[in-house]
Amino acid sequence: MKKINGTIASPKGFYADGFHSGLKRKRKDIGWIYSEFPASAAGVFTTNAVQAAPIQVTKSALASDSLQAIIVNSGNANACTGKNGVLHAQEMQQMAAEKLGLSANSVAVASTGIIGQELPMNKIKKGIFGLEKTAGVPSYFHEAILTTDTRTKEIVVEAEINGAIVTMAGVAKGSGMIHPNMATMLAFITTDAAVEKELLQQTLKMITDKTFNQITVDGDTSTNDMVLVLANGASGGAVIQKDDSGYQVLIDMLSQVMEELAKMIAQDGEGATKLIEVKVAHAKDQLTARMIAKKIVGSSLVKTAMFGADPNWGRIICAIGYANPSIDPDKVDISIGSLPVLLNSQPQVFEEMKMREILVQDKIVITVDLHEGTAVGLAWGCDLTYKYVEINALYHT
Amino acid sequence: MKKINGTIASPKGFYADGFHSGLKRKRKDIGWIYSEFPASAAGVFTTNAVQAAPIQVTKSALASDSLQAIIVNSGNANACTGKNGVLHAQEMQQMAAEKLGLSANSVAVASTGIIGQELPMNKIKKGIFGLEKTAGVPSYFHEAILTTDTRTKEIVVEAEINGAIVTMAGVAKGSGMIHPNMATMLAFITTDAAVEKELLQQTLKMITDKTFNQITVDGDTSTNDMVLVLANGASGGAVIQKDDSGYQVLIDMLSQVMEELAKMIAQDGEGATKLIEVKVAHAKDQLTARMIAKKIVGSSLVKTAMFGADPNWGRIICAIGYANPSIDPDKVDISIGSLPVLLNSQPQVFEEMKMREILVQDKIVITVDLHEGTAVGLAWGCDLTYKYVEINALYHT
Repeated sequence: MKKINGTIASPKGFYADGFHSGLKRKRKDIGWIYSEFPASAAGVFTTNAVQAAPIQVTKSALASDSLQAIIVNSGNANACTGKNGVLHAQEMQQMAAEKLGLSANSVAVASTGIIGQELPMNKIKKGIFGLEKTAGVPSYFHEAILTTDTRTKEIVVEAEINGAIVTMAGVAKGSGMIHPNMATMLAFITTDAAVEKELLQQTLKMITDKTFNQITVDGDTSTNDMVLVLANGASGGAVIQKDDSGYQVLIDMLSQVMEELAKMIAQDGEGATKLIEVKVAHAKDQLTARMIAKKIVGSSLVKTAMFGADPNWGRIICAIGYANPSIDPDKVDISIGSLPVLLNSQPQVFEEMKMREILVQDKIVITVDLHEGTAVGLAWGCDLTYKYVEINALYHT
Repeated sequence: MKKINGTIASPKGFYADGFHSGLKRKRKDIGWIYSEFPASAAGVFTTNAVQAAPIQVTKSALASDSLQAIIVNSGNANACTGKNGVLHAQEMQQMAAEKLGLSANSVAVASTGIIGQELPMNKIKKGIFGLEKTAGVPSYFHEAILTTDTRTKEIVVEAEINGAIVTMAGVAKGSGMIHPNMATMLAFITTDAAVEKELLQQTLKMITDKTFNQITVDGDTSTNDMVLVLANGASGGAVIQKDDSGYQVLIDMLSQVMEELAKMIAQDGEGATKLIEVKVAHAKDQLTARMIAKKIVGSSLVKTAMFGADPNWGRIICAIGYANPSIDPDKVDISIGSLPVLLNSQPQVFEEMKMREILVQDKIVITVDLHEGTAVGLAWGCDLTYKYVEINALYHT
């Protein structure tokens, strides 16, 4: 497998475009992905009880055989908008379907932006009218889905599966309820691999649990979170089966795409200056390992310590302790970067200058060893800064 | 029941004092509470797997019949200090017991302060030596338990139970892992009511769940949290039984003392400028109501909105949705102060000037109605400010 330059439309048979429709002041705010061929599709969605209208519409589209397009707008989340919200999401789906010559049910819909305001359908209409089916600029799609993200987030990988070169591309937008009343993490993945819907859904769910579900910016699960994968089979290889050796390659590709997008989202969290990666090793089981990793990276006290470049292991062991009351608190190792700060729960002396060098980097790795089993868990987050408070306190609805 | 002025030593038969031993630079850092008579005692402790040495020592003291004293130091948490930590906590208990003429097992021990540093026992010894048994200044105790709290926290109430005037006093120190590596919420309650240990423990647990367990500053559960109640029976009334009418009075007294201390802690959270109270009404059950209230008040996005005086109901309904995925998202009411912002999940127009007046107060009440049942839940917290980030990022271990 190798990483290549490209866009969400790099896999064979995919096209994408983005356009400015006026939902946002200046930047692109509507985009689509289109597949020449019907694609197996899989999705995971927010667990929030309050689900935006597009989530409901896309879930029912996913229940059909295959998908062939995704229409996305930013600037308005179409969340908490009642029955009109659902009608609007359906209308958006219908308009895109007509322009692409598809049935409505083969189009997924996603929205991100302000909560509680109705979608201005005239702008949406204008936007869809402006999109190009096969002559679009795919990287415009990467821009069109952003809200307060400071940069686009994309990755493309390539590998051989079942005798064909398979390409997979992923694009995402920022995590957390990033902006006041702005919702959400969105990620879209395209591939020309041939894989059936059920296996794709299983695989997506499995990898989501160790990638997107392991990032946190501020602990707030939004109303619009959505990850969609479209696999259109255009690479020409045989359909991938669960017991093929090629299935492991597909897992590896999807894992890399999703993990890298997850890290990009964490690193670009609101106000963030640093990516924090936490690795918990030798836990009793994977769930425990992941939970502890996520609690550490989600702790406001750990996050502020990392912002302040302070090797504050007291806050780390405290987070371990409340993440899982059943761990043995007397045999915990903690390292920051390569420097052990706690061994067998005993404080270690470390070189201050070396620690300082580690803590001023833009990526900090915290490693925890529980000495209780064989499971490993990873999680990613960012530091908590003045800028976070500023972004979220100064904005007025 | 009425509130009166007083100290932790206002209930009959109690004495208290505080002293500067050098654990903190200038302020008082060691104190005790002493009861002339053996007192029924009850305690609740942190659920963190990493428990400080004094927690372990106090739990075993509580297993004995009664307690007669509590010795507390601030400035050092005696947490993550291994076997020496336990020996030190026991030594502290022993020294206080000797000076008070008690058996070691009738003395509880509590510590709060830096994690991972051994207790300087010479200072502890000097401190205990300096405390006065019956001629102390009780309000010095209130000061001696503080770490980064900006003010002391105390309340005294009085009521008639079983024919006697019963007094109850409570004193607490700040919540959350307030200071870098500083742990903890501590609360001590004294009363001259006569009540047996088991009933006192049950009652304490029940009221803790709706008071101290419903406050959050930064979501970090420390290694040293402890609430202790001592009831010495000196009021002279008959022993309170569960089916006495007087038991309800005891519950009311303890509820008021604990709820007010809880609010004082939330209001004095690190960097806080405002107390936020969230009330969830008409939930299916109490646990749901409390959980939702606590998630709202714990949301970084709600906390920053309150700091910025922004009536951001989108963040509130989002927190409701992730707190409990089974609520009906289409019939939620939300009010900020007296102004409805959402009715039946539909946004409401409100007077901006009136809203502004509500949001610049130092206490903000958010009310949620779920229209699903009869249960009510309350939670308290504070806003998230630049000062919070400063306190926790600028400190260096």
